[in-house]
Amino acid sequence: MKMMIINIFFILSLVSSISFASVQDFCVADPSGPQGPSGFSCKNPDQVTANDFAFSGLAKAGNTSNMIKAAVTTAFAPAFSGVNGLGISVVRLDLAAGGVVPLHIHRGASEVLIVIEGTIRGGFISSDNKVYLKTLQKGEVIVFPQGLLHFALNNGTGPALAFAALGSSNPGVQLVPSALFASDLPSELVEATTFLSREEIRRLKRVFGGSN
Amino acid sequence: MKMMIINIFFILSLVSSISFASVQDFCVADPSGPQGPSGFSCKNPDQVTANDFAFSGLAKAGNTSNMIKAAVTTAFAPAFSGVNGLGISVVRLDLAAGGVVPLHIHRGASEVLIVIEGTIRGGFISSDNKVYLKTLQKGEVIVFPQGLLHFALNNGTGPALAFAALGSSNPGVQLVPSALFASDLPSELVEATTFLSREEIRRLKRVFGGSN
Amino acid sequence: MKMMIINIFFILSLVSSISFASVQDFCVADPSGPQGPSGFSCKNPDQVTANDFAFSGLAKAGNTSNMIKAAVTTAFAPAFSGVNGLGISVVRLDLAAGGVVPLHIHRGASEVLIVIEGTIRGGFISSDNKVYLKTLQKGEVIVFPQGLLHFALNNGTGPALAFAALGSSNPGVQLVPSALFASDLPSELVEATTFLSREEIRRLKRVFGGSN
Amino acid sequence: MKMMIINIFFILSLVSSISFASVQDFCVADPSGPQGPSGFSCKNPDQVTANDFAFSGLAKAGNTSNMIKAAVTTAFAPAFSGVNGLGISVVRLDLAAGGVVPLHIHRGASEVLIVIEGTIRGGFISSDNKVYLKTLQKGEVIVFPQGLLHFALNNGTGPALAFAALGSSNPGVQLVPSALFASDLPSELVEATTFLSREEIRRLKRVFGGSN
Amino acid sequence: MKMMIINIFFILSLVSSISFASVQDFCVADPSGPQGPSGFSCKNPDQVTANDFAFSGLAKAGNTSNMIKAAVTTAFAPAFSGVNGLGISVVRLDLAAGGVVPLHIHRGASEVLIVIEGTIRGGFISSDNKVYLKTLQKGEVIVFPQGLLHFALNNGTGPALAFAALGSSNPGVQLVPSALFASDLPSELVEATTFLSREEIRRLKRVFGGSN
Amino acid sequence: MKMMIINIFFILSLVSSISFASVQDFCVADPSGPQGPSGFSCKNPDQVTANDFAFSGLAKAGNTSNMIKAAVTTAFAPAFSGVNGLGISVVRLDLAAGGVVPLHIHRGASEVLIVIEGTIRGGFISSDNKVYLKTLQKGEVIVFPQGLLHFALNNGTGPALAFAALGSSNPGVQLVPSALFASDLPSELVEATTFLSREEIRRLKRVFGGSN
Repeated sequence: MKMMIINIFFILSLVSSISFASVQDFCVADPSGPQGPSGFSCKNPDQVTANDFAFSGLAKAGNTSNMIKAAVTTAFAPAFSGVNGLGISVVRLDLAAGGVVPLHIHRGASEVLIVIEGTIRGGFISSDNKVYLKTLQKGEVIVFPQGLLHFALNNGTGPALAFAALGSSNPGVQLVPSALFASDLPSELVEATTFLSREEIRRLKRVFGGSN
Repeated sequence: MKMMIINIFFILSLVSSISFASVQDFCVADPSGPQGPSGFSCKNPDQVTANDFAFSGLAKAGNTSNMIKAAVTTAFAPAFSGVNGLGISVVRLDLAAGGVVPLHIHRGASEVLIVIEGTIRGGFISSDNKVYLKTLQKGEVIVFPQGLLHFALNNGTGPALAFAALGSSNPGVQLVPSALFASDLPSELVEATTFLSREEIRRLKRVFGGSN
Repeated sequence: MKMMIINIFFILSLVSSISFASVQDFCVADPSGPQGPSGFSCKNPDQVTANDFAFSGLAKAGNTSNMIKAAVTTAFAPAFSGVNGLGISVVRLDLAAGGVVPLHIHRGASEVLIVIEGTIRGGFISSDNKVYLKTLQKGEVIVFPQGLLHFALNNGTGPALAFAALGSSNPGVQLVPSALFASDLPSELVEATTFLSREEIRRLKRVFGGSN
Repeated sequence: MKMMIINIFFILSLVSSISFASVQDFCVADPSGPQGPSGFSCKNPDQVTANDFAFSGLAKAGNTSNMIKAAVTTAFAPAFSGVNGLGISVVRLDLAAGGVVPLHIHRGASEVLIVIEGTIRGGFISSDNKVYLKTLQKGEVIVFPQGLLHFALNNGTGPALAFAALGSSNPGVQLVPSALFASDLPSELVEATTFLSREEIRRLKRVFGGSN
Repeated sequence: MKMMIINIFFILSLVSSISFASVQDFCVADPSGPQGPSGFSCKNPDQVTANDFAFSGLAKAGNTSNMIKAAVTTAFAPAFSGVNGLGISVVRLDLAAGGVVPLHIHRGASEVLIVIEGTIRGGFISSDNKVYLKTLQKGEVIVFPQGLLHFALNNGTGPALAFAALGSSNPGVQLVPSALFASDLPSELVEATTFLSREEIRRLKRVFGGSN
Repeated sequence: MKMMIINIFFILSLVSSISFASVQDFCVADPSGPQGPSGFSCKNPDQVTANDFAFSGLAKAGNTSNMIKAAVTTAFAPAFSGVNGLGISVVRLDLAAGGVVPLHIHRGASEVLIVIEGTIRGGFISSDNKVYLKTLQKGEVIVFPQGLLHFALNNGTGPALAFAALGSSNPGVQLVPSALFASDLPSELVEATTFLSREEIRRLKRVFGGSN
C-alpha cells in the first residue's frame, strides 16, 4: 500500500475549508415554538438525539375492546417529533375479528397499508363512485390514493395487525361517522347535506355522543 | 427628447441575442396525449389561441330542478384546457331556495367560495370534529381548507349564485352520499364502515341508484 | 332494524382509541408571530372560529374615482387570515367604464378571473411576445398563467365587476407602471432598462409620484 | 321518519347536474407510455382495477443467502403500479442474523422503518458528521431524514424482518459500496474522491465485480 | 488484514437481492415526446450518456454588437437536456461597457447571478415599489427573488461577464420592453395599461419591430 | 403628444385603491427567530436592504493548502440571508492542481457547476451503478441530478475555479469520507455497512480524526 502522508495541518485545513451547516438535515418538532404552514418549529439541533428519530409507541397493541373492535395508534408529528417536515408518518392498526377502521380520509396524504397478521379487506371509492376493494393476506400491501374515502376491515376469523405509512408528517384522520355524529353539526344540516333521515341521525348522534 | 438612433442591424441583433423558448409559459391540455401525475400533455404551443384560456361554460345558470335543488358546473381541465398544470380551476354553483351542495371533499385542494347572489351557508368539519359554519351574503367569501368535509346550502328565500375557485386544475369532487349510495359498495360494507342501519342504507341506495 | 347495542364504555373507548391531532387542518395566520418562507405562523387552533375562514371585505364596491377608473380589493393573508398556507386567495375588481387594471404580474401565482357584470377584456403576453386577448361577458372566465404580464380593461359602456382567484395565499401584485414610475428607481436606470425616453419617464414620474 | 319523496326524474337530474371527471384520482403507471419528470404515464382509468392498488410481492421472505445476509424487496413504481404519482412506496427487509443493509441513500426521499420481527440497529449520519444510532425492537419505528446516508443491521441473534415506507413512488437506492466497487468508476478516481487505498479499492472491486 | 472470503455465489446473490430500478435518477429531455406540466418526456435511460449532463454552449462569449450591448445565452431544457425535471438551469451574460439586460421577469424562478469579470449593477423592484440596487464586483453574488422585475447593467468601463442560475429547468425570460413593443399588442392597449403616451409607444414599436 | 391631465386626487386614489402587501416578495433569513421545515424566519421587511440580497464571501479564493488541495466556500442561508426560502444557493470551488471535491451528496438538491478557469472533471454515479464522467473546460457546465453521489477534480495542470448553484437555499453537503472517517461511527459499523477492512477504516479514521 502506498503510504499517504498527511500531517495534522492538512486535517485541520480540511475541517475549516469544508465547513457546512446542517441546520436543515432535519427539523425535529419543537411543539413549544410557533407552528407554520409547513409544520412545527425545529428543535435546537444541539439538543437533538437519536431518540428523536425513533418511536416506540407503536410497539404495544392497541385496545380493541370498543365499538369498532379496532385501535388506531398514530406516530405523527409532534408525538413522533423526528418526522416533522419530512412528509411521512406511520400508524398501527389493531383489528379484532370483525374490527373496522371506519370510512375516513386524510388531508391530501396517500397511504400504504401493510398487513402483518390476519386478513384485512381494504377499499376506497373514487370521485366517480367506483369502488376498489381488495382482500389482503399477511405481507400484502394496498395503497389508498390521497383525498379519497377509504376504510379497512378485519374479515378474517382471528385478530389482524397492519402498519400504514402516510405521505405527510401529520396527515390527520377525518372519520366520516365521527364528523357527522360526534360533532355538533345540527341534525338538520346533517340531514340536508347527506340525505340521511332525521331518525337515523338522532340515533347515531346518541351512539357517538354528538350534540344538536 | 434625446434622439435614440438604432439601426436595423441592432434590432435584429436583439432578437437573436435574446431568444428564449417559452414552451412552458403554459401547458394547455391536449386530452389526446398521455396523462401523467402532474396533468395532461401540452397542446402544441403553435396551435394555442386565446380561446384556450377562456371558458364560457359557466355563463349559463345550471338546472336546479333536481333532488338537491342545485347545480354544480365545473371548469376543470381538460374541459377548461388552459388551466392544465396551473393548479387552479373554477366551479359555478346555482342553488334554488333550499338547494344544497351535499357533504363532499376535493382531492387535497382548498376552495374559496364567493357569493354573487342570495344567502349561502357554508360549513366544514375539522378532523377533530369541530364544526365551522358561516352564513354569507352577496360579496362575502369563505375558504374551505383542503381535504376536509364541507358543504354549502342556500338558506335564503330566493335563488343563490356562487363561484368557487379550487387549488388544482382538476380537483375532483367526492360527494359522501354518492360515494356511499350511488356506488356498488356492498350494503354490509357501508353499514360496517359508517354505522348506518341496513334499512337506511337500502333506502338511500334506492334513492341514489346504487347497487348491492 | 337490527339493534346495535353500544354501551358508554365502548363510546369512550372509541374516542380514546382514535384520537388524532388536527393541528394542521388549517393554519390561520397569526400576524404577531414570526413569518417563514411558507407563510405566517398559525393562530392557536383553540382560538380559531368560523369567522377566520370568512371575509366580508369584498362585499362593498371599491371606489373607482381615480386615475385608473378601477379598484382592486384584495383578500390575501394575513387580512383574510384563513387562507394562510392554503395556496389560494381572492381579489375583487371594480372597473368603471374605461377602467383598467394596469399591466402587472403576481409572484408565480396563476389567476382565474370571473366576470360578474359588464364586459371585460383580459390579456396576457407570453415570454416570446405573443399576445393572448379575450373579451369576456358576464359569467365567462379567463386564466392568466403564472408569472406572465397581464391586464384587464372594462371595454363595455357601463361598470364592470369581476372576482379573481389566485394560486397563492398572498400573491402580491407588481404593477409595471408603479414599479417604474412610483418608485425611486433613478430615471437613468428606467431609461437604460426599458428604452423609454427620459422625457416620458419624467412625465410619468410626476404622474405617479416617483422620485429620482 | 319523515318520508322523503324523490321521483326518478330527480335522481337522474342529480347524476347529470353533478358530473365530475375523476381522471386524476390516481395515475396508475403505464410503463409502455412516455415517462416525465413526475413519473410514469397514467393507465387508462377504464382499465384500472383494484389489483393495480395492491401488491403481493412483499409477502414472501427474500433470500438472505448472500454476502449481506439480507434481502431488500421493493414495491416501487412501476412494479407497484398504483403508487405512481402518489409520492409513497414500500420495501421489505429480511435480515438473517448478522445481516446488513449497507450504507445507502435514496433520491431525496425520507424513510420510516418499522421492525416486525427481531432486533434491528438503524443509523444515519448528518451532514456535519454526527451519528444517530438506535436499536429497535419489534414494533418500534425509526425515521431516516431525506438525503442522508443511512443503514440497518440485524444485531439480534435470530432473523429480523422490517418494512419501510419511502416518500417517493420510486425513490431509488444508491448503495455506497456498490456505487464505488460494482461500477466502472476507475480505481484512481475512487481513490482520489474517497481517500481509500488503491489496494483496498482493488480488493473490493473484485468482491463486487466492478471494472477499472 | 482479515481475509474476507466471498464466493461468486454470494456476489451474484447480492446483485439479484438488491436490484433497484433507477428510471428516475434523472429525466433527460426527449423533445420528440409529449410535454407535460412538469417538463419534457424522459429520454430512454439506455441512450443517456454523460454528454446529456454537460453543456458547452456557454463557453463562447455572446455577440454584444447590438442595441443592448449585451448577450444572454441560455442553458435551459431542452437545449441543455440534462436539467429537465431538476428545477435548475444556467444563463451566461456578456455585457459590453454600457450593456444592459433590460427589465424582465422569469416564470416564478429565483435567480442567483455571479459576476466573473467587470462590474455589474443589479437591481429589482418589490411589489410595493421599493428598489433594491447593488453594484457587484468580480466574485460577488446577487439573488433576484422569484417573480419580481429585475435587470442588470454593466456600469464599469470594460466588458463584464456573469453567469446566473435559475430555479427552473426552463424559466423563460419575459422582457418588459419586448413584451410591449416587439409584440402585436395594440398601441391603445399599451397606452391604457401602462400610461405611456401614444407617441412614445409608436416610437418604440418602430425600434423593436412590434405591429399595431 | 396628447396631454394627460391627472390631478393629485387621482394619484392619491391610485395609491389607496391598489395597496398590496409585499410581505412575501422575499423572506430574508433572521437566524435569531425560530426555524421551520421550510427555512429560517423572515427578517422584518422594513429592515431589509439591498445588502441582504448580495454576498461578497465568494469573491476571495479559498485556501487550497490542505489535504484535498481544494476549498469549497458556500453562500447558503443564513450566511447569504437573501436566498432563504428561494430554493437556490451558490458555492465557490477552488481547486489547486490535483485538487478534489470528494464524493458527496446534497439533501435532495440538484447542482449545476460552471467552470470559470482550468479543467475540471466532474462525475456522478446513478443508483444502478452507472458512471457519468465528463471533463469540462472553461465556460462549460455540468449538472449533477439530485440525490446522487458526485465529485469534481482538477485534472488540469494549473489551478481551477468553478461556481456551482444548488436547488436549495441550504442544501448541505455530506462528504462520504468525512461521514465515515471523521465521525464517531464505530469502526465495526463502518466495516459492516461498507465492506471496507478494519485496517483501512482505522487508517482513515486517523487521517480524518474520527473516533471509535
